[in-house]
Amino acid sequence: MTTDPLVIFTPSGKRGHVPVGTPVLTAARQLGVDLDSVCGGRGICSKCQITPSFGEFPKHGVTVSEDALSAWNAVEARYDEKRGLKTGRRLGCQATINSDVVIDVPPESQVHRQVVRKAATARDITMAPATRLYFVEVQEPDMHEPTGDLERLAQALKDQWDIEGVSAPLSVLSRLQTALRKGKWQVTVALHKGHADTEHRVVDIWPGLHEDGIYGLAIDLGSTTIAAHLCDLATGDVKASSGLMNPQIRFGEDLMSRVSYAMMNPGGDVEMTSAVRAAIDDLAKSIAEEAEIDPRLIVEAVFVCNPVMHHLLLGLDPVELGQAPFALATSNSVSLDARDLDLPAINAAARVFLLPCIAGHVGADAAAVALSEAPNKSEDLVLVVDVGTNAEILLGDKRRVLACSSPTGPAFEGAQISSGQRAAPGAIERIEIDPVTKEPRFRVIGSDIWSDEEGFAEATAASGITGICGSGIIEAVAEMRIAGLLDPSGLIGGPAQTGTPRCIPEGRTHSYMIHDASADGGPVITVTQGDIRAIQLAKSALYAGARLLMDEMGTDQVDRVVLAGAFGAHISTKHAMVLGMIPDAPLDKVTSAGNAAGTGARIALCNIDARAEIEETVHKITKVETAIEPKFQEHFVNASAIPNSVDPFPILNSVLDLPNVSFNTGGGDGAEAGGRRRRRRG
Amino acid sequence: MTTDPLVIFTPSGKRGHVPVGTPVLTAARQLGVDLDSVCGGRGICSKCQITPSFGEFPKHGVTVSEDALSAWNAVEARYDEKRGLKTGRRLGCQATINSDVVIDVPPESQVHRQVVRKAATARDITMAPATRLYFVEVQEPDMHEPTGDLERLAQALKDQWDIEGVSAPLSVLSRLQTALRKGKWQVTVALHKGHADTEHRVVDIWPGLHEDGIYGLAIDLGSTTIAAHLCDLATGDVKASSGLMNPQIRFGEDLMSRVSYAMMNPGGDVEMTSAVRAAIDDLAKSIAEEAEIDPRLIVEAVFVCNPVMHHLLLGLDPVELGQAPFALATSNSVSLDARDLDLPAINAAARVFLLPCIAGHVGADAAAVALSEAPNKSEDLVLVVDVGTNAEILLGDKRRVLACSSPTGPAFEGAQISSGQRAAPGAIERIEIDPVTKEPRFRVIGSDIWSDEEGFAEATAASGITGICGSGIIEAVAEMRIAGLLDPSGLIGGPAQTGTPRCIPEGRTHSYMIHDASADGGPVITVTQGDIRAIQLAKSALYAGARLLMDEMGTDQVDRVVLAGAFGAHISTKHAMVLGMIPDAPLDKVTSAGNAAGTGARIALCNIDARAEIEETVHKITKVETAIEPKFQEHFVNASAIPNSVDPFPILNSVLDLPNVSFNTGGGDGAEAGGRRRRRRG
Repeated sequence: MTTDPLVIFTPSGKRGHVPVGTPVLTAARQLGVDLDSVCGGRGICSKCQITPSFGEFPKHGVTVSEDALSAWNAVEARYDEKRGLKTGRRLGCQATINSDVVIDVPPESQVHRQVVRKAATARDITMAPATRLYFVEVQEPDMHEPTGDLERLAQALKDQWDIEGVSAPLSVLSRLQTALRKGKWQVTVALHKGHADTEHRVVDIWPGLHEDGIYGLAIDLGSTTIAAHLCDLATGDVKASSGLMNPQIRFGEDLMSRVSYAMMNPGGDVEMTSAVRAAIDDLAKSIAEEAEIDPRLIVEAVFVCNPVMHHLLLGLDPVELGQAPFALATSNSVSLDARDLDLPAINAAARVFLLPCIAGHVGADAAAVALSEAPNKSEDLVLVVDVGTNAEILLGDKRRVLACSSPTGPAFEGAQISSGQRAAPGAIERIEIDPVTKEPRFRVIGSDIWSDEEGFAEATAASGITGICGSGIIEAVAEMRIAGLLDPSGLIGGPAQTGTPRCIPEGRTHSYMIHDASADGGPVITVTQGDIRAIQLAKSALYAGARLLMDEMGTDQVDRVVLAGAFGAHISTKHAMVLGMIPDAPLDKVTSAGNAAGTGARIALCNIDARAEIEETVHKITKVETAIEPKFQEHFVNASAIPNSVDPFPILNSVLDLPNVSFNTGGGDGAEAGGRRRRRRG
Repeated sequence: MTTDPLVIFTPSGKRGHVPVGTPVLTAARQLGVDLDSVCGGRGICSKCQITPSFGEFPKHGVTVSEDALSAWNAVEARYDEKRGLKTGRRLGCQATINSDVVIDVPPESQVHRQVVRKAATARDITMAPATRLYFVEVQEPDMHEPTGDLERLAQALKDQWDIEGVSAPLSVLSRLQTALRKGKWQVTVALHKGHADTEHRVVDIWPGLHEDGIYGLAIDLGSTTIAAHLCDLATGDVKASSGLMNPQIRFGEDLMSRVSYAMMNPGGDVEMTSAVRAAIDDLAKSIAEEAEIDPRLIVEAVFVCNPVMHHLLLGLDPVELGQAPFALATSNSVSLDARDLDLPAINAAARVFLLPCIAGHVGADAAAVALSEAPNKSEDLVLVVDVGTNAEILLGDKRRVLACSSPTGPAFEGAQISSGQRAAPGAIERIEIDPVTKEPRFRVIGSDIWSDEEGFAEATAASGITGICGSGIIEAVAEMRIAGLLDPSGLIGGPAQTGTPRCIPEGRTHSYMIHDASADGGPVITVTQGDIRAIQLAKSALYAGARLLMDEMGTDQVDRVVLAGAFGAHISTKHAMVLGMIPDAPLDKVTSAGNAAGTGARIALCNIDARAEIEETVHKITKVETAIEPKFQEHFVNASAIPNSVDPFPILNSVLDLPNVSFNTGGGDGAEAGGRRRRRRG
C-alpha cells in the first residue's frame, strides 16, 4: 500500500496527503491554504509563488528530498527569464508534488495577507478587499447556443472561480465586447462583492492578464482638511498619501457656520457639495499622479467624515444637523457609485462606501476611529480622542463604549492661529523652549534637522519657514507653559516678568517670538495672546467632552489615552497633557495613533468584513450629545487653565514640575480667561 | 358558547370567523383576501372600499342582518362628503363586523385586479406591478435614540407593511427630510421591488397621502416606429398611447444599414444612441401631457425591441450583431436606472426593465410577443407573426416553440412606399376596391366614416388625407389583386387591361390612383409598381421566415395564425392572407393581436412575476437563424407571387376566387419579380 505524499504548508501549518502529480496550487486550495492566484493556475499571473524547503523537519516529522517537487518547467523558465523569480521560488500552479514536502507561502502570495501597522497597539489589517481581480477564459459565442457576452463571462466566473450573481453596469458592458475579442476570450475583471455573496459587479475589464493592479482611496474628509491614502487593493500597501484644505472653509470655518450658510443661502448646500466633490476629484487625480498610476485604476473609495461633511458630500441638506434633535438623513453605511458623487477622475464604475454615522453629532469619522482603535475590544478603559475641527471622543472597554463629539474649532489644525497653517513643508511641527534661556529651537516639516543644528538653513531653503501647524502650536503653547512664559491662566508674561526680549508687548498683551525672518523679507512667527486663547477654547472643548463621557461612565480616571487626528500623527502626548487637552494619566499610557479615522477608512477599504463589523459596533455604542448636556458647558468653562483647573493632574505633576508663575496684573484680558473660575479639586 | 361572526368575501369565496368588532380590512388580511389599501387602514386612502350584502344567502348558508356591520362613522361620512362614496359602499378599514356578513370586494378595490384585454384569445393581465405606493407613519427623530430618517422610514415599512431591505438613491434621499417634516412624519413612498424579496428601493416620496397615482411606460422600440403606452400602475389602465418615428431612420432605414453606419463612422453608434434616447424622452413628455399627468409620476419603464435597437438604446456597439455568430453583448433581461438612459423627463429614480433577447437576431420584442401570445401554452400549433421592419416569428405549442426574425424592411410600416406614412390622423388605414367599377372607397385614421359616405369631407377636414399607413398599404395591394388590377406576379394592369382610368401609365409601368386632391392643392395618393415590389419583398421575407420554422417543426400546416405588429392592430387578416404574408390557414383561424410586443411590454410592466416567467420561457425557445439558413433564401425567392407561388392556398381559394388575370406583356419590370421563379406545388 502506497501512501500519497504529505504536504505541509507554512506558516499556516495546514497539512494533508495529495496524489503524486498534484500542482501545489491545487493542493493549497484543497487544504484551504491561503495561496493567491489571479489567473486561476494558468502560469501567467505569478501570484502563487511558493518556496519549498528541503531536508529534515523533525518538528513536522518529515524528510523532504530535493526532488519532492517536479523539475522547473518551461512556464517557470520563461517567467524567470522575463521577470525574474527569486531564488528558491516556484510557481505554485506549475510545480507538482512528487513526495513529502514542506512549502512556505510567502506573505506576498497570500490573498488574505496581513498589513502590519506601525503602532504597536494597533491591530494589523487582514486583506479581504471588496474588489478583486479575476482572470477568466470565456467561451466564444456560438450561433446555435445564443447567449450574450456578459452571460458567458458570468458562466466562466461561475465555472472557474465559483462566483455567482455577476452583473455589469452599462459603462463596463459597453467595453465588454472589445475586451473579450481583443483578449482572445481571455480577460481580467475587477469584481466588486456586494452585501450578499451572490452580488458581484464587474467594475472594470481588461483584455488578457491585467498586471497594473487596482487601487482604492481611503479618504478622511474633515471640516478643515481632506486627507487621502491611495492603497493597492491586492497588497494593502499605501502607494501615496496626500491632503488638501477643504474648500468649504470659504463658506464657514466650523461646521455650524456651514450649516448656517446652508440655512441662510438658498442653494448654499448645493454650492458646498459641488466644492467638496471637485476638491476630492482633484485630490484623486493628484494622488494618482504622485503614485504614477492611471486614476482609472482607482476602483473603490471609502469615506469617513463627520455628519455635516457626510451630508454635504452626499448632497443632503445639513440644516437638520444644526438643531435638536440633530436628525441624520441616513445613519447606516452608504454604498453608491462614484458617479453619484461626480468623481470623473476615477473609474466610472468605482464603488464608494461611507462608514455609518453614530449620531447626529458623532459621525462616520468616529466610527472609523472605533474601527481602527477598537475600544470595544479593549480590556482596560481607554479614552480615544480624535483631534480635529470637531473632536471625536470615545471612551470604553469591551463591556461598553460611549461616544461624543466636541466642537473644538479649527485651532488644533493651525487655523484661526496668527501664524497657523496646515501641515505642509515649511510648517513648524516640533518646538522646544529652553527653561533657562527661554530660547526656542524647532523643526519644520520636510526636514529632520533642528533649527539650532548645522545644515538647518540649507535643509529648509526650499520650503522656507512659513508658519506653525497643528502639532506645532500644541507644542509651542505647552513649552511656553513649561518654560514659565505662560501662567496657568494662559497669560503670556512680559519681557520684564519672563526675562526674555522674545516676549514682545502687543497692545495690552504680549506675544512670544519664535522666528523672525523679517530682515530677509521673511515672516515673523509668533504666538500671540489670541493664539493662546484659541487653543484654550479648543482644548477646553476637547477636555469637556472627555470628562462628560467619564461622568457618564461613572469614572474619574482612565487607564489609557489614545490621541489621534487627521494631521495629528505627530501630536506629542506630553505636550497635549501639559496643555490639559486630556484628563490626567500616566505619560506612558498616553499614545499617539496618528490619523485613526483615516486608518479606519483604510481598514474598511482593505477588508470587507470590517464594514459589517463597524455597522454592528456602531449600533452598540452609546451616544452622548454634548450640545444639550448642561454638564458639558460646565466642564467647558472650568477647563481653560493650563493644565485644567478642574483636574488635579497628580500623575503629570509627578513627572513635570510646572512653574507656579502668575502674570495676572489685576486687569487686561488675561485675568478673565483662566483665572475667573479657577478652582482646584482634591 | 358564542361563536364569532362568519364573514364571507366575494368574489373570492374566502370565509372565516372573526371576533365582533374586527374591521373588514383586518378580516380580509387575516383570510388572505385581496383587498387594497395604500394608507394601511387609516381611513384616508379609500382604496379598501367594499360592498356588504344583506338578507338571505342560502348558497352560503347565512342570513345577514342590516346591522351586520357597524354604523357609518365620522371618517366615512367625511370621505363621502368630500369625495363621494358610491351607494352601498363602505370603507373596509372603518366598518367593523357585528354579525355574519357577506362582503363583496369590487374589482377596483383588489390589489391584484385583472386587466381585461379586448382580444378574446388574449389572457388577462393580473396586476402585480414592481412599483407600488405605501403610506406610512414614521417615528419622529429622538436625540437619545439617534437613527437616520431613512432608517426610521425603513423601520416603519417593516412594522406597518412587513417590507424589508429598503434603500433609497441619493435623488430620493435628498428629498426625504423635507417630505417627512412637511407630511408631519406621514408620507407615501413609491417602492420598487427588485429581484429579491428583500430588495426594495424608494423611487419617490410625497408628504402625506399621495393621491395622484404612479405610472409606467410600456415601450415598443421598433426600427421604424416607437410606440408607447402610459399605464396606471395601480389599475393597469392605459391612460394614453402614443408613437413617433424612430429618428435613427436618418442613419439607415433598416437594421443592417444602421449597423453599417456604426461600423463605418467612428462614434456613429453613440450618435444613434443619443438620437433614440432623446426621442424616447420626448415621447415620455408628450404622452404625459396627453394624459395630463406630471411626467415625474412615471416611475417605471419597460422596453421591448429587437437586438440592434436593444444595443443602440443601451449604448452598446451593434457591430457584432451584423456578422456571424451574431453575438449579443448581453442576452438576459436588463434592469437599470432611467438616468442610465438619459431620460430626464421622467422620475429621476425611475427603474427601467428590458426584456431578454432570444438570440442575436431575435430580440426582446419577440420575447414580448411570446409573453403576450404565449405560444408555449398553446394546445394547438400557432404561428405568431409580429409585423414590423424586422418581423418576429414564433411557431409552436406547449411542447416546443421555435423563433426567428426576418428582415422584412419598413414597407409594412408605410415607409419606402411612395404615398406611405406612419399611422397618424389623415392616413388611409382601410380600403376597399369595387371589383366591378374598380372604384376605391377608404377610411382614414381619426374618422369612422368611409370616403363614399356622407360627412366624410367634414370628418377629415382637420387631418386632411395625407397618405397610406402600413395596414392601408396591405389592404390596398390585396384589394387590387382581388379586383383584378394586379396579376399574381404583382404587375399592375394598364387602363385598357383593367378598364379603369385609375390605372395610370407611369413610365413602363402603371400606378393605381386612390385619391387625387391636386385640384385643391392636396396630395395625389397612388399605389405605384415600386410600392407593389416593396410589399412583395417584405411579404416574401415574412413568409420565408414562417416557412423556415414550419420546416424545422416538420409541418406543412399550422392550426392558427396570430398577426401582430406595432401599428398592426388593424391589419386585416383576410388581406394579409391574399397578399401571402402568411401560410394558408382557415380565415377564422387567423386573428389579429394588435401590438403584441407592446402588450408584452405592458404585461411585464404590470406584473413582476411575468418578468421571471419570460426569462424562463426565453431559455426554452429554440432559435433559428435565418441569416445563415440556405432554405430561407430559397423560400424567399420563391414567395413573391400574390398569393405565394410556393403555397397552394386551397383554404383561401375555397373562400375567395381570385381573378386569374395576367398583365405580363413579355417585357418590362413586371415580368421578372413574380413570374421568373413561378412554380406551383400540389
